[in-house]
Amino acid sequence: MKFASLKGPGRDGRLVVVSGDLARAVEVPRIAPTLQAALDDWAALVPALEQAADRLQGDELGPEDVFPFDPAACAAPLPRAYQFADGSAYLNHVALVRRARGAELPAELLDDPLMYQGASDGFLGPTDPIEVADEAFGIDLEAEVAVITDDVPMGVSPERALGHVKLVMLLNDVSLRRLIPGELAKGFGFFQGKPRSACSPVAVSPVALGNAWRDGRLHGALRSSINGRELGHPDAGVEMQFDFGRLIAHAARTRPLAAGTVVGSGTVSNQDRSVGSSCLAEVRTIETIEQGKATTGFLKLGDRVRIEMLDAHGRSIFGALDQQVVRYDGP
Amino acid sequence: MKFASLKGPGRDGRLVVVSGDLARAVEVPRIAPTLQAALDDWAALVPALEQAADRLQGDELGPEDVFPFDPAACAAPLPRAYQFADGSAYLNHVALVRRARGAELPAELLDDPLMYQGASDGFLGPTDPIEVADEAFGIDLEAEVAVITDDVPMGVSPERALGHVKLVMLLNDVSLRRLIPGELAKGFGFFQGKPRSACSPVAVSPVALGNAWRDGRLHGALRSSINGRELGHPDAGVEMQFDFGRLIAHAARTRPLAAGTVVGSGTVSNQDRSVGSSCLAEVRTIETIEQGKATTGFLKLGDRVRIEMLDAHGRSIFGALDQQVVRYDGP
Repeated sequence: MKFASLKGPGRDGRLVVVSGDLARAVEVPRIAPTLQAALDDWAALVPALEQAADRLQGDELGPEDVFPFDPAACAAPLPRAYQFADGSAYLNHVALVRRARGAELPAELLDDPLMYQGASDGFLGPTDPIEVADEAFGIDLEAEVAVITDDVPMGVSPERALGHVKLVMLLNDVSLRRLIPGELAKGFGFFQGKPRSACSPVAVSPVALGNAWRDGRLHGALRSSINGRELGHPDAGVEMQFDFGRLIAHAARTRPLAAGTVVGSGTVSNQDRSVGSSCLAEVRTIETIEQGKATTGFLKLGDRVRIEMLDAHGRSIFGALDQQVVRYDGP
Repeated sequence: MKFASLKGPGRDGRLVVVSGDLARAVEVPRIAPTLQAALDDWAALVPALEQAADRLQGDELGPEDVFPFDPAACAAPLPRAYQFADGSAYLNHVALVRRARGAELPAELLDDPLMYQGASDGFLGPTDPIEVADEAFGIDLEAEVAVITDDVPMGVSPERALGHVKLVMLLNDVSLRRLIPGELAKGFGFFQGKPRSACSPVAVSPVALGNAWRDGRLHGALRSSINGRELGHPDAGVEMQFDFGRLIAHAARTRPLAAGTVVGSGTVSNQDRSVGSSCLAEVRTIETIEQGKATTGFLKLGDRVRIEMLDAHGRSIFGALDQQVVRYDGP
C-alpha cells in the first residue's frame, strides 16, 4: 500500500491511497479521514485499506472516485506527528563529521545508537519551500529514510520492534549547520539547528516495498541533487549500523512510543566515496580531509533540492521531494 | 477558564471546563471535543468556551450537565501533544548541578536559554503511575511550570510570544538520572533519560490566574513532596531567568510552533535554600557541596510524589499531581 495526505481542509489533510506507479489516487474518508486516524487504529482498519488499494490497483473503482495523483498537492504523509525520533545510523557520516574536527569515532557508538528528539509538530510537504530567515545559518539538506510506527510498548526487543514498522518514507532533515555547534556545546542537543523536516509525497508499507525492504533496512540508491546536479546516490541498505528494529527499540527503552511515531535513519552515507553524499556538511568534511579546506558552500536562497529513490525499473517509489530554499521575511 | 481532559474513550480524552474551585465540571463536546481541537481553532472557539465557563461558575447549568470534578479520572490536559519544548530557566538549578561536578555556569547561559526537545507523544495523567523497569536508572521528579501555546509564527519576538500563551499547568518532568550523563556525553541531548512527563489535572488560562500570572511568569510556591514529606516549595516567579515569552521566542527562532505546543520552564529552583528543592538531583547536589557526598537516594518503587500550587487562600490552583512509582515488568 502507498499513502499520501492531500493538503487541507484541516491541519492533518485528507488521507488518500495511491497506486503503485504513483499515477492515481483515491480518498478513503469512510475508512480513515487522516493517516493519524489510520495509525491510531491500524490493525482494525488495515483490511479495508488493503481492499481500497487492491481495487485502485485493479481498476475496479469508478472514474468519479479515482483522480490523478499530484505530489504538489501533498502535505507530508503525517502533516504533524506526535514524535520524531531521529537516529544517526550510518556511522560513515558520523565518523567523517568527527574526523573533520580531529576526533575519533567512540567505540561505544558501534553498539549504542545516536538518536535525538526532533521536531514533529509540523513536517513540510514534499514541494513546500524551505523558509529560512538568514542564509548565514548554513542551510543544509540531509537525505534519509524514515519509518512510521503504530503503538510500540516500552522495552520492546529489536526483533519485535520491526513488526511495528507500518510505513516507510523519505525525509529531508533540514539542518542549519552554523547554529549546531553552539547548540550542541550547551549539552542539551539540537533545537534551533533542526527546523522542520520535509517528507516524500508517499509513505509505503513494507510489503509493497518487496525485496527493497529486508533486514530492517530500505535497500536502494537514495538520490539527492541540488539545482539538477547530483549530490549523491548512496545505498540506504549499505552500512546502516543499526536497523530500524534497533532504532525503535532504543527509542522505546524507557517509554512506549505512540502510534504515528516517526523514526529516522540519519543521513544516508556509504564509505564508497564514488557514490557521493546526502548532505553538504559531508561534502565539506571530505574536502577538508582531502584538501585542507571546504570549498563547497551551503544552500543559497533560491536553490532547489531534490531527493528520490527509484526502483529496479527506474520508477519512483516514494515520489520526489522537490523543494526550494526561500527567504523568510518575519512574522 | 480551567480545562481538563477526562480519560477515554479516544486517545485524546474528553475536554471539560472545570470550575475555579475544581469542584465541578461540564463537558463541552459541541464546542470542542478535545483540548487539541480547541487549541487548533482557539480564537474562534474561545467565546463559547468562556460562556460555558461563566455558566458553570454562575450555577446556570442544569444538574444533568454538571458533575463533580475528579482528578483521578483525568488524563493530562493534552494526553498527547505535537511538541514539548522544555527550557531550563531557573539558573540556580543549572548552576547547582554544574557546581556539583566542579564546573562554572557559562556566562552565555545568562542570555541564551537552555532548551531541549522533549517527548510529547504521551503525557501521563496526574495520578497515573510512573512505570520504570529498573530502580537503578535513578528515578527523579522535576516539578516545573509549563504553558500551552496556540500557533506561534517563526521569528516571533519575546513580547509577542507571551500573547501565544493560552494555558498554564504544572508538570512532573520525570528524569532517569543515571541514564543522563552517558546520553549527554554522546552529544545529541536527552532521550532515554527523559521518559514521559506527567501533567496537573487542570490547565488554566492566564486571565484566570489573576495576579499570579505576571511578567510572563507564574508566581507562587510550587510544593513538591515525596511520601507526604515536603521536598520543597520554591516560588516559581522568583529567579526564573527567562520568562515564557523568551522561552517561546527561543523555540520559534528558526521554525513556527504548532498549536498545542507545550513549553516547560525547567525545574523550579530558588537560591534561598530554606525553601527546599523541586527534584532529588538538586538535593543530592547540595549535599555533595555541603557535606562532600549525597546521602539522599533517588525515588524507590512504591514512592509517591505530589506536586501542587495553592493560591493565597490555600486552594489548589491546578489540582495535584499525585503519582506512585511502580515497576514496569516488560511488554
